Amino acid sequence: MDKTKLKDLIDSIDFTAAGKQMYQLIAELYPICRSITGNGVRQTLSKIKSVVPLEVKEVPSGTQVFDWEVPNEWSIQDAWVKNSKGDKIIDFKKSNLHVLNYSLPIKKKVSLKELKKHIYTLPDHPDWIPYRTSYYQKNWGFCTSYKQFLELNDEYYNVFIDSTLKEGSLTFGEFYLKGSKSEEVLISTHICHPSLCNDNLSGIVLSAMLGKHLSNVSLKYSYRFLFIPGTIGSITWLSLNAKSASRIKHGLVVACVGDSGNFTYKKTRQGSAEIDKAVRHALQNSQNDFNIIDFFPYGYDERQYCSPGFNLPVGCLMRTPHGEYPEYHTSADNLEFVKPENLAASLSLYLDVLYILEENKKHISQNPMCEPQLGRRGLYEHIGGHADSKKLQFALLWTLNLSDGHHRLLDISERSGLDFNLISDAADILVEKGLIKEHKTRS
Amino acid sequence: MDKTKLKDLIDSIDFTAAGKQMYQLIAELYPICRSITGNGVRQTLSKIKSVVPLEVKEVPSGTQVFDWEVPNEWSIQDAWVKNSKGDKIIDFKKSNLHVLNYSLPIKKKVSLKELKKHIYTLPDHPDWIPYRTSYYQKNWGFCTSYKQFLELNDEYYNVFIDSTLKEGSLTFGEFYLKGSKSEEVLISTHICHPSLCNDNLSGIVLSAMLGKHLSNVSLKYSYRFLFIPGTIGSITWLSLNAKSASRIKHGLVVACVGDSGNFTYKKTRQGSAEIDKAVRHALQNSQNDFNIIDFFPYGYDERQYCSPGFNLPVGCLMRTPHGEYPEYHTSADNLEFVKPENLAASLSLYLDVLYILEENKKHISQNPMCEPQLGRRGLYEHIGGHADSKKLQFALLWTLNLSDGHHRLLDISERSGLDFNLISDAADILVEKGLIKEHKTRS
Amino acid sequence: MDKTKLKDLIDSIDFTAAGKQMYQLIAELYPICRSITGNGVRQTLSKIKSVVPLEVKEVPSGTQVFDWEVPNEWSIQDAWVKNSKGDKIIDFKKSNLHVLNYSLPIKKKVSLKELKKHIYTLPDHPDWIPYRTSYYQKNWGFCTSYKQFLELNDEYYNVFIDSTLKEGSLTFGEFYLKGSKSEEVLISTHICHPSLCNDNLSGIVLSAMLGKHLSNVSLKYSYRFLFIPGTIGSITWLSLNAKSASRIKHGLVVACVGDSGNFTYKKTRQGSAEIDKAVRHALQNSQNDFNIIDFFPYGYDERQYCSPGFNLPVGCLMRTPHGEYPEYHTSADNLEFVKPENLAASLSLYLDVLYILEENKKHISQNPMCEPQLGRRGLYEHIGGHADSKKLQFALLWTLNLSDGHHRLLDISERSGLDFNLISDAADILVEKGLIKEHKTRS
Repeated sequence: MDKTKLKDLIDSIDFTAAGKQMYQLIAELYPICRSITGNGVRQTLSKIKSVVPLEVKEVPSGTQVFDWEVPNEWSIQDAWVKNSKGDKIIDFKKSNLHVLNYSLPIKKKVSLKELKKHIYTLPDHPDWIPYRTSYYQKNWGFCTSYKQFLELNDEYYNVFIDSTLKEGSLTFGEFYLKGSKSEEVLISTHICHPSLCNDNLSGIVLSAMLGKHLSNVSLKYSYRFLFIPGTIGSITWLSLNAKSASRIKHGLVVACVGDSGNFTYKKTRQGSAEIDKAVRHALQNSQNDFNIIDFFPYGYDERQYCSPGFNLPVGCLMRTPHGEYPEYHTSADNLEFVKPENLAASLSLYLDVLYILEENKKHISQNPMCEPQLGRRGLYEHIGGHADSKKLQFALLWTLNLSDGHHRLLDISERSGLDFNLISDAADILVEKGLIKEHKTRS
Repeated sequence: MDKTKLKDLIDSIDFTAAGKQMYQLIAELYPICRSITGNGVRQTLSKIKSVVPLEVKEVPSGTQVFDWEVPNEWSIQDAWVKNSKGDKIIDFKKSNLHVLNYSLPIKKKVSLKELKKHIYTLPDHPDWIPYRTSYYQKNWGFCTSYKQFLELNDEYYNVFIDSTLKEGSLTFGEFYLKGSKSEEVLISTHICHPSLCNDNLSGIVLSAMLGKHLSNVSLKYSYRFLFIPGTIGSITWLSLNAKSASRIKHGLVVACVGDSGNFTYKKTRQGSAEIDKAVRHALQNSQNDFNIIDFFPYGYDERQYCSPGFNLPVGCLMRTPHGEYPEYHTSADNLEFVKPENLAASLSLYLDVLYILEENKKHISQNPMCEPQLGRRGLYEHIGGHADSKKLQFALLWTLNLSDGHHRLLDISERSGLDFNLISDAADILVEKGLIKEHKTRS
Repeated sequence: MDKTKLKDLIDSIDFTAAGKQMYQLIAELYPICRSITGNGVRQTLSKIKSVVPLEVKEVPSGTQVFDWEVPNEWSIQDAWVKNSKGDKIIDFKKSNLHVLNYSLPIKKKVSLKELKKHIYTLPDHPDWIPYRTSYYQKNWGFCTSYKQFLELNDEYYNVFIDSTLKEGSLTFGEFYLKGSKSEEVLISTHICHPSLCNDNLSGIVLSAMLGKHLSNVSLKYSYRFLFIPGTIGSITWLSLNAKSASRIKHGLVVACVGDSGNFTYKKTRQGSAEIDKAVRHALQNSQNDFNIIDFFPYGYDERQYCSPGFNLPVGCLMRTPHGEYPEYHTSADNLEFVKPENLAASLSLYLDVLYILEENKKHISQNPMCEPQLGRRGLYEHIGGHADSKKLQFALLWTLNLSDGHHRLLDISERSGLDFNLISDAADILVEKGLIKEHKTRS
């Protein structure tokens, strides 16, 4: 019945294989046309369910969620534009980005002039199709490459969008993993984008894989994974769970974790929460360049979790941030833009962060007056057996010295300049020898 | 009955014209021989009265003001030195700097040797006359250029100073502008220097012009303008108003604002008072180089306002600080040393600071749980209509996110990196839409 | 009956002579074979007694001191290794470093192979003998140069160590100097190292000389000088004095003060205690390069004083820190490695630090509302008579301005950027004139 320890799990994962698995799952989810509601979301959640046993929840259209209302549900079967010869020159079946997301149904013959009013392009990247939405303003439209747009002849076109926008529900997935404490770690990812790989199939598959792995592990915190449409999804969830949201002690929004850029961590609104320190430490240990940026109230769902009435300690851990790579929200955010090895390294970093959170204990020295005699307790043997015995000796002394009720292991790691793992090892040894005792706070 | 808003006033001022007006007033005040008491002060205040309806106050000689006593009143009609041929070689009528300020009366034939003991010069600047005073040590003397000093022949001289030093009073001007709160902004300037333009006719005319302009405006704070002799004037005022001085919530000492140097702000003793932040923000926005220096207990009247028993949040906003330009306290601090355009830019900066103080409100979000839906309230129209719509959108989100009772608009501006005006605009829009509400504290 | 003031003492010391005296004392103590217990310690304390009237204390073997036990007492008369020809090739009489400190007695014929297991060398410095100990693991051994080690022939050797390890006591010296307050300054130095000059005969003689000089001075604080074996000595003292240890308000561990390196100050665990500020100020004033390093829980006895149950404000003021010079713990830490002038400069620095602690008073302005009139009190005469009159004037103004009950003289010195001595002089003048009054806290 004994579950693995998180550390052993991390050591046992074949990250190369995990990267390939995540990439494969992206490839399967890529063709689905997702939006903030509708069947695309349901199909997506159903696929994720094969990885992690999430619960699918439906919230009826019209439900009041704080200042917002759950919108009508959008579904789409087909859409195209035909020229006067009857050739399908724009075809939803080829790329679901071709349709303005949340387009109303239409079947109409239009002039080139009228058609152009409903076509969105990217003149700076003439080969790419942009991704555009119109959730709260009723409209219809198509997105094409700028190149194709320039080649349109002055003739009449038949436009056809076979969509529905009607009462239904907003769908999201929730996966709850009970730990020994009721205090929670939130992992939140948005699932509303259609065929875009980095933003945010990468986030979806990383969250799923994380949930799968953690299921096999003995955990201190409880973990809540949310697979939700952006903005309206987090608002809906917070509205339904306003009272219990304070159980969230640490949180991360997962997005854009498959590209090849350096990691970027956007801090919580609080700015120096434990999650902020844990991510910084994990990044410093990763020995790659990284950026840590301050909170700002736009971006992904952290803007809702960090609204002043909640002010939850939720940060956002990405590679290249939204809007800062040209492929962002275009057809170029495709299966070539994300890489298995990037996904694997992202998963590894997330696990390192969670490991720190899980192990970031506070201890009280049982021997606070002067140092205890280490030799008498055979602690030098421990030291001798360790790869870097000098460092472990320092770690033991630091941990003894700072186990005063004011420092967690991560604080000790930061003050000593020693790696968190080493400090954590030292603490385990000292607990075993009865020299320090974990200081547990109620949960 | 409705008064202009400060912002509209600032937008409406013709600063080029205002600079010329201030310069003209300096030119009129320049010939008057001022000191810490006497008719020169009265004439000066009388001229300022034509700009701003100040009240002239007289405090009798001998009045105890804390550790000090109001000194006897000094007046001077004429003074000269004649050589043996009877030529006036030094003539008070040509420059009032020629007389040691507060000189006792004298009429005497003296040898060159004796005369030299009473002559003050500037060997480093042989063409300039220094400005010297002897308020609290009884003495007489003349100031000349070093050049003239070297040319003095070894002969007898007739010296004549037609001054009086006797019981009278210390004169100062006070202009009080009632705002909607009884909390005050103090604008204090020293009026005791004779023919010196930058130090401090520039401060006098800027304060007068500021008072004049603010008179037409609807204000939150009450404003108190003091035109006082340096040191003894502020001590006298504080002594007479010791109990009510705590109404001063922000203050600035105005001096040396007409030269061509960069702005220098000397912080309050408190070091991070609201006025310190407001000045810093205004300076950063001015897009010129500037210096911010820490408080030190010498300089102008801020040393009295910031004495430990008062510790008022009063800073000093100058261009080049006292003593840091060679023309300081010499005849070279003349009408050529100050420029209309410098005065104008200084006035503009002072108004920017006061605008920030007036508008630096605190709000409470009426919708703190998640973001409110901006689109539904037509807020995107506002955004569309604004010069920099992206920035206004950010300003709206920042203001919503930080309107939690802990942040004033200036704090929001600093944390977001967005200009105060933009944040203030955003707050006005959000108040109008009912999304935030001003949090008023008692006054 | 009036004792000298510390300042006058400092001014009167001939530091060149003091340096030579300390060096001479090192030379006398050098041949003695010290350890953590035994007669070497007693002989050493007896010599120091000729400088400073310390009390010698004996704590019986087996006494429980927190987590430790006072060990058996070790004494040694002689030790050697003879080759098959009967030549003494290693001889304790030539250098007491040749014997592993705390070696058990032995008299045995051994093969080269066995001998080598008990020989310690320094391959990186083939001419030097290392210093090694085995206090808590029973063992015997010799230390030689690596050069000699390589020259050993494959033959049989006679090894002889005439030592005893039996019940006795741990010996330490304590010198208490009563000041006007019961609050204490601790000066602690370790006396357990045999023929090693910098570590720590330099610390011993500096402490002794400091004690001698302070005996003639009128002091505010009481001073406690400890001459103790490292680790077990401070643990023993703290165990015996656990309740009164909180009287220690400032402390320094004295070690490695005779070499030619720059000063290094290791801060207290608290990190910004008054002693930390005082040492920093004294170092800044010394106009030599120096290092200030953060506390870490290894090093000298500060690790015991700064254990979490005590957390006393005790730092460590050295020249080159332990382990950071190659001569450390080798026969090269000899009489050539330390210099009289280095010892003299260290003594001078320690006195500067203590001067700051003694004089770091807090005052309350008796005239907090505006500045008092300095001229009327003849304070300008004081200014005129001072070497740097402008700076003294600033010092007077700063001290008046910050004598508000929140700033000690060292705080005023730091905020003003003026030297502590100048601020202290200014405070003396202002006290004399009745303008400020010392704010004494209970002791």
